[in-house]
Amino acid sequence: MSDNARLQRQIEFILEIDRLKQVLRRTLTIDKLRQENSAEHSWHIALMAIIFSEYAENLQIDVFRVVKMLLIHDLVEIDAGDTFCYDDHAREGQHERELQAAKRIFNLLPVDQARQLQSLWEEFEARQTLNSRFANALDRLQPLISNYYTGGRAWRKHGVKRHQVAARNCWIEEGAPELWRYALGLIEDAVVRGILTE
Amino acid sequence: MSDNARLQRQIEFILEIDRLKQVLRRTLTIDKLRQENSAEHSWHIALMAIIFSEYAENLQIDVFRVVKMLLIHDLVEIDAGDTFCYDDHAREGQHERELQAAKRIFNLLPVDQARQLQSLWEEFEARQTLNSRFANALDRLQPLISNYYTGGRAWRKHGVKRHQVAARNCWIEEGAPELWRYALGLIEDAVVRGILTE
Repeated sequence: MSDNARLQRQIEFILEIDRLKQVLRRTLTIDKLRQENSAEHSWHIALMAIIFSEYAENLQIDVFRVVKMLLIHDLVEIDAGDTFCYDDHAREGQHERELQAAKRIFNLLPVDQARQLQSLWEEFEARQTLNSRFANALDRLQPLISNYYTGGRAWRKHGVKRHQVAARNCWIEEGAPELWRYALGLIEDAVVRGILTE
Repeated sequence: MSDNARLQRQIEFILEIDRLKQVLRRTLTIDKLRQENSAEHSWHIALMAIIFSEYAENLQIDVFRVVKMLLIHDLVEIDAGDTFCYDDHAREGQHERELQAAKRIFNLLPVDQARQLQSLWEEFEARQTLNSRFANALDRLQPLISNYYTGGRAWRKHGVKRHQVAARNCWIEEGAPELWRYALGLIEDAVVRGILTE
Protein backbone atom coordinates (compact mmCIF):
# COMPACT_ATOMS: atom_id res chain seq x y z
CA MET A 1 0.00 0.00 0.00
CA SER A 2 3.01 2.30 0.07
CA ASP A 3 5.89 2.69 -2.39
CA ASN A 4 8.03 3.48 0.60
CA ALA A 5 9.32 0.16 1.95
CA ARG A 6 10.33 1.73 5.24
CA LEU A 7 6.89 3.22 5.80
CA GLN A 8 5.28 -0.08 4.82
CA ARG A 9 7.23 -1.90 7.56
CA GLN A 10 6.23 0.73 10.10
CA ILE A 11 2.58 0.32 9.09
CA GLU A 12 2.85 -3.48 9.48
CA PHE A 13 4.09 -2.92 13.02
CA ILE A 14 1.28 -0.45 13.81
CA LEU A 15 -1.26 -2.99 12.55
CA GLU A 16 0.28 -5.87 14.49
CA ILE A 17 0.35 -4.08 17.84
CA ASP A 18 -3.41 -3.57 17.65
CA ARG A 19 -3.60 -7.14 18.96
CA LEU A 20 -2.41 -6.00 22.40
CA LYS A 21 -5.97 -4.65 22.87
CA GLN A 22 -7.19 -8.27 23.16
CA VAL A 23 -4.63 -9.43 25.74
CA LEU A 24 -6.54 -9.56 29.02
CA ARG A 25 -4.99 -9.09 32.44
CA ARG A 26 -6.25 -10.44 35.77
CA THR A 27 -6.87 -6.91 37.04
CA LEU A 28 -10.32 -5.37 36.62
CA THR A 29 -11.10 -1.87 35.45
CA ILE A 30 -11.94 0.23 38.51
CA ASP A 31 -15.70 0.18 37.77
CA LYS A 32 -15.40 -3.65 38.01
CA LEU A 33 -17.14 -4.05 34.65
CA ARG A 34 -14.47 -6.18 32.99
CA GLN A 35 -10.84 -7.25 32.92
CA GLU A 36 -8.37 -4.66 31.81
CA ASN A 37 -6.35 -5.24 28.63
CA SER A 38 -2.64 -4.67 28.23
CA ALA A 39 -2.98 -1.78 25.75
CA GLU A 40 -5.09 0.37 28.06
CA HIS A 41 -2.91 -0.65 31.03
CA SER A 42 0.11 0.63 29.07
CA TRP A 43 -1.67 3.92 28.41
CA HIS A 44 -2.54 4.31 32.07
CA ILE A 45 0.99 3.81 33.37
CA ALA A 46 2.56 5.97 30.65
CA LEU A 47 0.39 8.81 31.90
CA MET A 48 1.23 7.90 35.51
CA ALA A 49 4.93 8.30 34.63
CA ILE A 50 4.24 11.91 33.65
CA ILE A 51 2.10 12.72 36.70
CA PHE A 52 4.35 10.90 39.21
CA SER A 53 7.79 11.75 37.83
CA GLU A 54 8.51 13.89 40.93
CA TYR A 55 8.53 10.71 43.03
CA ALA A 56 11.26 8.94 41.09
CA GLU A 57 14.06 7.73 43.34
CA ASN A 58 16.45 9.93 41.44
CA LEU A 59 15.13 13.09 39.83
CA GLN A 60 17.62 12.73 37.00
CA ILE A 61 15.41 10.21 35.25
CA ASP A 62 14.54 10.73 31.59
CA VAL A 63 10.73 10.78 31.76
CA PHE A 64 10.34 10.40 28.00
CA ARG A 65 12.49 7.26 28.03
CA VAL A 66 10.34 5.89 30.87
CA VAL A 67 7.17 6.67 28.89
CA LYS A 68 8.56 4.94 25.79
CA MET A 69 9.46 1.87 27.87
CA LEU A 70 5.98 1.72 29.33
CA LEU A 71 4.28 2.12 25.96
CA ILE A 72 6.15 -0.90 24.57
CA HIS A 73 6.83 -3.03 27.68
CA ASP A 74 3.91 -5.42 27.16
CA LEU A 75 4.05 -5.86 23.37
CA VAL A 76 5.66 -9.28 23.86
CA GLU A 77 2.35 -10.44 25.32
CA ILE A 78 0.87 -10.43 21.81
CA ASP A 79 2.69 -13.76 21.35
CA ALA A 80 3.53 -14.79 24.91
CA GLY A 81 0.25 -13.83 26.61
CA ASP A 82 -0.11 -12.11 29.96
CA THR A 83 1.53 -14.30 32.60
CA PHE A 84 -0.23 -14.08 35.96
CA CYS A 85 2.44 -12.87 38.34
CA TYR A 86 1.37 -15.15 41.22
CA ASP A 87 1.30 -18.32 39.09
CA ASP A 88 4.77 -19.87 39.40
CA HIS A 89 3.86 -22.69 37.03
CA ALA A 90 2.79 -20.31 34.26
CA ARG A 91 5.97 -18.28 34.76
CA GLU A 92 8.20 -21.21 33.77
CA GLY A 93 9.64 -20.48 30.37
CA GLN A 94 8.09 -17.01 30.38
CA HIS A 95 11.34 -15.21 29.68
CA GLU A 96 12.20 -17.44 26.73
CA ARG A 97 8.73 -16.99 25.24
CA GLU A 98 8.98 -13.25 25.66
CA LEU A 99 12.44 -13.09 24.08
CA GLN A 100 11.11 -14.86 21.00
CA ALA A 101 8.11 -12.55 20.91
CA ALA A 102 10.28 -9.44 21.16
CA LYS A 103 12.42 -10.67 18.28
CA ARG A 104 9.45 -11.27 16.01
CA ILE A 105 7.44 -8.18 16.86
CA PHE A 106 10.19 -5.53 17.00
CA ASN A 107 11.72 -6.90 13.78
CA LEU A 108 8.60 -5.97 11.87
CA LEU A 109 10.08 -2.45 12.04
CA PRO A 110 13.03 -1.07 10.05
CA VAL A 111 16.24 -2.30 11.66
CA ASP A 112 17.18 0.97 13.41
CA GLN A 113 13.78 1.22 15.10
CA ALA A 114 13.71 -2.50 15.90
CA ARG A 115 17.00 -2.07 17.75
CA GLN A 116 15.73 0.95 19.66
CA LEU A 117 12.62 -0.86 20.87
CA GLN A 118 14.54 -4.04 21.69
CA SER A 119 16.95 -1.94 23.75
CA LEU A 120 14.12 -0.20 25.62
CA TRP A 121 12.45 -3.54 26.36
CA GLU A 122 15.69 -5.15 27.58
CA GLU A 123 16.37 -2.17 29.81
CA PHE A 124 12.88 -2.42 31.28
CA GLU A 125 13.24 -6.15 31.91
CA ALA A 126 16.74 -5.93 33.44
CA ARG A 127 15.73 -3.31 36.04
CA GLN A 128 19.28 -2.06 36.36
CA THR A 129 18.86 1.60 35.42
CA LEU A 130 17.04 4.37 37.29
CA ASN A 131 14.67 4.79 34.36
CA SER A 132 13.70 1.13 34.27
CA ARG A 133 13.30 0.95 38.05
CA PHE A 134 10.88 3.84 37.99
CA ALA A 135 9.04 2.28 35.03
CA ASN A 136 8.75 -1.05 36.85
CA ALA A 137 7.52 0.70 39.99
CA LEU A 138 4.57 2.14 38.04
CA ASP A 139 3.89 -1.18 36.31
CA ARG A 140 3.44 -2.65 39.81
CA LEU A 141 1.64 0.27 41.43
CA GLN A 142 -1.19 0.57 38.91
CA PRO A 143 -2.64 -2.96 39.39
CA LEU A 144 -2.19 -2.63 43.17
CA ILE A 145 -4.32 0.53 43.13
CA SER A 146 -6.88 -1.15 40.86
CA ASN A 147 -7.05 -4.24 43.06
CA TYR A 148 -7.50 -2.12 46.16
CA TYR A 149 -10.25 0.03 44.64
CA THR A 150 -12.13 -2.96 43.20
CA GLY A 151 -12.45 -4.46 46.67
CA GLY A 152 -9.61 -6.92 46.10
CA ARG A 153 -11.72 -8.96 43.73
CA ALA A 154 -8.79 -10.27 41.66
CA TRP A 155 -6.82 -11.08 44.86
CA ARG A 156 -9.73 -13.02 46.31
CA LYS A 157 -10.57 -14.80 43.07
CA HIS A 158 -7.01 -16.07 42.73
CA GLY A 159 -6.34 -16.66 46.43
CA VAL A 160 -3.51 -14.14 46.61
CA LYS A 161 -2.17 -13.40 50.13
CA ARG A 162 -0.72 -10.29 51.75
CA HIS A 163 2.87 -11.60 51.80
CA GLN A 164 2.69 -12.25 48.06
CA VAL A 165 1.41 -8.75 47.32
CA ALA A 166 4.04 -7.16 49.57
CA ALA A 167 6.87 -9.25 48.08
CA ARG A 168 5.86 -8.60 44.51
CA ASN A 169 5.36 -4.90 44.97
CA CYS A 170 8.55 -4.11 46.82
CA TRP A 171 9.98 -3.21 43.42
CA ILE A 172 8.01 0.00 43.87
CA GLU A 173 10.42 0.88 46.69
CA GLU A 174 13.43 0.63 44.38
CA GLY A 175 12.01 3.08 41.86
CA ALA A 176 9.80 5.40 43.90
CA PRO A 177 10.16 5.22 47.71
CA GLU A 178 7.34 7.64 48.50
CA LEU A 179 4.94 5.71 46.27
CA TRP A 180 6.01 2.57 48.12
CA ARG A 181 4.95 4.12 51.44
CA TYR A 182 1.59 4.88 49.84
CA ALA A 183 1.38 1.31 48.46
CA LEU A 184 2.17 -0.18 51.88
CA GLY A 185 -0.69 1.85 53.34
CA LEU A 186 -3.06 0.36 50.76
CA ILE A 187 -1.85 -3.18 51.55
CA GLU A 188 -2.27 -2.68 55.31
CA ASP A 189 -5.71 -1.18 54.87
CA ALA A 190 -6.73 -3.99 52.50
CA VAL A 191 -5.94 -6.50 55.26
CA VAL A 192 -7.87 -4.45 57.85
CA ARG A 193 -10.86 -4.30 55.51
CA GLY A 194 -10.70 -8.02 54.87
CA ILE A 195 -10.21 -7.75 51.10
CA LEU A 196 -6.70 -9.23 51.33
CA THR A 197 -5.94 -12.18 53.60
CA GLU A 198 -2.89 -12.48 55.86
CA MET B 1 -5.11 7.11 52.03
CA SER B 2 -2.05 9.35 51.91
CA ASP B 3 -0.87 12.02 54.34
CA ASN B 4 0.51 13.81 51.36
CA ALA B 5 -2.31 16.00 50.03
CA ARG B 6 -0.54 16.53 46.73
CA LEU B 7 -0.10 12.80 46.17
CA GLN B 8 -3.71 12.18 47.16
CA ARG B 9 -4.91 14.58 44.43
CA GLN B 10 -2.69 12.86 41.89
CA ILE B 11 -4.11 9.47 42.93
CA GLU B 12 -7.67 10.80 42.53
CA PHE B 13 -6.81 11.81 38.99
CA ILE B 14 -5.24 8.42 38.21
CA LEU B 15 -8.38 6.70 39.51
CA GLU B 16 -10.72 8.99 37.57
CA ILE B 17 -9.01 8.54 34.20
CA ASP B 18 -9.58 4.78 34.41
CA ARG B 19 -13.07 5.60 33.11
CA LEU B 20 -11.65 6.41 29.67
CA LYS B 21 -11.37 2.62 29.22
CA GLN B 22 -15.17 2.46 28.94
CA VAL B 23 -15.59 5.23 26.35
CA LEU B 24 -16.26 3.42 23.08
CA ARG B 25 -15.40 4.76 19.65
CA ARG B 26 -17.07 3.92 16.34
CA THR B 27 -13.87 2.31 15.05
CA LEU B 28 -13.37 -1.43 15.48
CA THR B 29 -10.21 -3.15 16.64
CA ILE B 30 -8.46 -4.56 13.57
CA ASP B 31 -9.56 -8.15 14.33
CA LYS B 32 -13.16 -6.78 14.09
CA LEU B 33 -14.03 -8.32 17.48
CA ARG B 34 -15.30 -5.17 19.13
CA GLN B 35 -15.30 -1.37 19.20
CA GLU B 36 -12.11 0.26 20.29
CA ASN B 37 -12.08 2.39 23.45
CA SER B 38 -10.47 5.78 23.84
CA ALA B 39 -7.78 4.65 26.31
CA GLU B 40 -6.32 2.01 24.01
CA HIS B 41 -6.70 4.38 21.03
CA SER B 42 -4.62 6.92 22.97
CA TRP B 43 -1.96 4.28 23.63
CA HIS B 44 -1.86 3.33 19.96
CA ILE B 45 -1.36 6.85 18.65
CA ALA B 46 1.19 7.76 21.35
CA LEU B 47 3.30 4.86 20.09
CA MET B 48 2.64 5.92 16.49
CA ALA B 49 4.07 9.34 17.33
CA ILE B 50 7.34 7.67 18.30
CA ILE B 51 7.49 5.38 15.26
CA PHE B 52 6.35 8.04 12.74
CA SER B 53 8.16 11.10 14.10
CA GLU B 54 10.40 11.18 11.00
CA TYR B 55 7.33 12.09 8.90
CA ALA B 56 6.42 15.22 10.83
CA GLU B 57 6.03 18.23 8.56
CA ASN B 58 8.83 19.91 10.44
CA LEU B 59 11.49 17.76 12.04
CA GLN B 60 11.87 20.28 14.87
CA ILE B 61 8.85 18.86 16.65
CA ASP B 62 9.13 17.89 20.31
CA VAL B 63 8.10 14.23 20.17
CA PHE B 64 7.63 13.97 23.93
CA ARG B 65 5.23 16.92 23.90
CA VAL B 66 3.30 15.24 21.07
CA VAL B 67 3.17 11.99 23.07
CA LYS B 68 1.91 13.82 26.17
CA MET B 69 -0.79 15.55 24.09
CA LEU B 70 -1.92 12.24 22.65
CA LEU B 71 -2.01 10.51 26.03
CA ILE B 72 -4.36 13.17 27.42
CA HIS B 73 -6.23 14.41 24.31
CA ASP B 74 -9.34 12.27 24.86
CA LEU B 75 -9.70 12.55 28.66
CA VAL B 76 -12.52 15.07 28.19
CA GLU B 77 -14.58 12.20 26.72
CA ILE B 78 -14.98 10.80 30.26
CA ASP B 79 -17.64 13.49 30.72
CA ALA B 80 -18.42 14.58 27.17
CA GLY B 81 -18.43 11.15 25.47
CA ASP B 82 -16.91 10.29 22.11
CA THR B 83 -18.55 12.47 19.48
CA PHE B 84 -18.85 10.71 16.12
CA CYS B 85 -16.95 12.92 13.73
CA TYR B 86 -19.44 12.52 10.88
CA ASP B 87 -22.49 13.35 13.00
CA ASP B 88 -23.00 17.11 12.67
CA HIS B 89 -25.95 17.05 15.05
CA ALA B 90 -23.95 15.36 17.83
CA ARG B 91 -21.13 17.83 17.30
CA GLU B 92 -23.31 20.80 18.30
CA GLY B 93 -22.18 22.00 21.69
CA GLN B 94 -19.27 19.53 21.68
CA HIS B 95 -16.65 22.17 22.34
CA GLU B 96 -18.54 23.63 25.29
CA ARG B 97 -19.07 20.17 26.80
CA GLU B 98 -15.40 19.36 26.37
CA LEU B 99 -14.27 22.64 27.93
CA GLN B 100 -16.33 21.88 31.03
CA ALA B 101 -14.95 18.34 31.13
CA ALA B 102 -11.36 19.54 30.86
CA LYS B 103 -11.92 21.97 33.71
CA ARG B 104 -13.33 19.30 36.00
CA ILE B 105 -10.91 16.49 35.17
CA PHE B 106 -7.62 18.39 35.00
CA ASN B 107 -8.48 20.25 38.21
CA LEU B 108 -8.45 17.01 40.14
CA LEU B 109 -4.67 17.44 39.94
CA PRO B 110 -2.50 19.88 41.91
CA VAL B 111 -2.77 23.30 40.28
CA ASP B 112 0.62 23.25 38.52
CA GLN B 113 -0.11 19.93 36.84
CA ALA B 114 -3.71 20.91 36.07
CA ARG B 115 -2.37 23.94 34.19
CA GLN B 116 0.15 21.85 32.27
CA LEU B 117 -2.46 19.38 31.08
CA GLN B 118 -4.97 22.11 30.27
CA SER B 119 -2.30 23.82 28.19
CA LEU B 120 -1.44 20.61 26.33
CA TRP B 121 -5.10 19.95 25.62
CA GLU B 122 -5.76 23.50 24.40
CA GLU B 123 -2.71 23.31 22.15
CA PHE B 124 -3.95 20.02 20.70
CA GLU B 125 -7.42 21.41 20.08
CA ALA B 126 -6.25 24.70 18.53
CA ARG B 127 -4.01 22.97 15.93
CA GLN B 128 -1.82 26.05 15.57
CA THR B 129 1.57 24.60 16.50
CA LEU B 130 3.72 22.08 14.63
CA ASN B 131 3.45 19.68 17.57
CA SER B 132 -0.32 19.79 17.67
CA ARG B 133 -0.64 19.46 13.91
CA PHE B 134 1.45 16.32 13.97
CA ALA B 135 -0.55 14.99 16.93
CA ASN B 136 -3.83 15.66 15.14
CA ALA B 137 -2.52 13.96 11.99
CA LEU B 138 -1.97 10.74 13.95
CA ASP B 139 -5.33 11.04 15.70
CA ARG B 140 -6.89 11.01 12.22
CA LEU B 141 -4.60 8.45 10.59
CA GLN B 142 -5.11 5.65 13.12
CA PRO B 143 -8.90 5.26 12.66
CA LEU B 144 -8.47 5.59 8.88
CA ILE B 145 -6.04 2.65 8.91
CA SER B 146 -8.36 0.67 11.21
CA ASN B 147 -11.39 1.38 9.03
CA TYR B 148 -9.50 0.34 5.90
CA TYR B 149 -8.20 -2.91 7.44
CA THR B 150 -11.59 -3.85 8.89
CA GLY B 151 -13.16 -3.74 5.42
CA GLY B 152 -14.69 -0.33 6.00
CA ARG B 153 -17.23 -1.77 8.39
CA ALA B 154 -17.65 1.42 10.44
CA TRP B 155 -17.88 3.52 7.24
CA ARG B 156 -20.57 1.27 5.81
CA LYS B 157 -22.50 0.98 9.05
CA HIS B 158 -22.70 4.75 9.39
CA GLY B 159 -23.10 5.55 5.68
CA VAL B 160 -19.89 7.55 5.48
CA LYS B 161 -18.81 8.61 1.95
CA ARG B 162 -15.44 9.12 0.34
CA HIS B 163 -15.68 12.93 0.24
CA GLN B 164 -16.35 12.96 3.99
CA VAL B 165 -13.34 10.76 4.72
CA ALA B 166 -11.09 12.82 2.47
CA ALA B 167 -12.29 16.13 3.94
CA ARG B 168 -11.94 14.98 7.52
CA ASN B 169 -8.53 13.47 7.05
CA CYS B 170 -6.89 16.31 5.17
CA TRP B 171 -5.59 17.42 8.56
CA ILE B 172 -3.07 14.63 8.11
CA GLU B 173 -1.57 16.67 5.27
CA GLU B 174 -0.93 19.63 7.56
CA GLY B 175 1.02 17.59 10.09
CA ALA B 176 2.61 14.81 8.06
CA PRO B 177 2.51 15.19 4.24
CA GLU B 178 4.04 11.79 3.47
CA LEU B 179 1.52 10.06 5.72
CA TRP B 180 -1.20 11.96 3.87
CA ARG B 181 -0.02 10.49 0.55
CA TYR B 182 -0.24 7.07 2.16
CA ALA B 183 -3.72 7.87 3.55
CA LEU B 184 -4.94 9.05 0.13
CA GLY B 185 -3.79 5.72 -1.31
CA LEU B 186 -5.90 3.88 1.29
CA ILE B 187 -8.94 6.03 0.49
CA GLU B 188 -8.61 5.47 -3.27
CA ASP B 189 -8.13 1.75 -2.79
CA ALA B 190 -11.11 1.58 -0.42
CA VAL B 191 -13.30 3.04 -3.17
CA VAL B 192 -11.91 0.60 -5.78
CA ARG B 193 -12.60 -2.31 -3.42
CA GLY B 194 -16.12 -1.09 -2.75
CA ILE B 195 -15.68 -0.68 1.00
CA LEU B 196 -16.11 3.10 0.76
CA THR B 197 -18.75 4.63 -1.52
CA GLU B 198 -18.17 7.62 -3.78
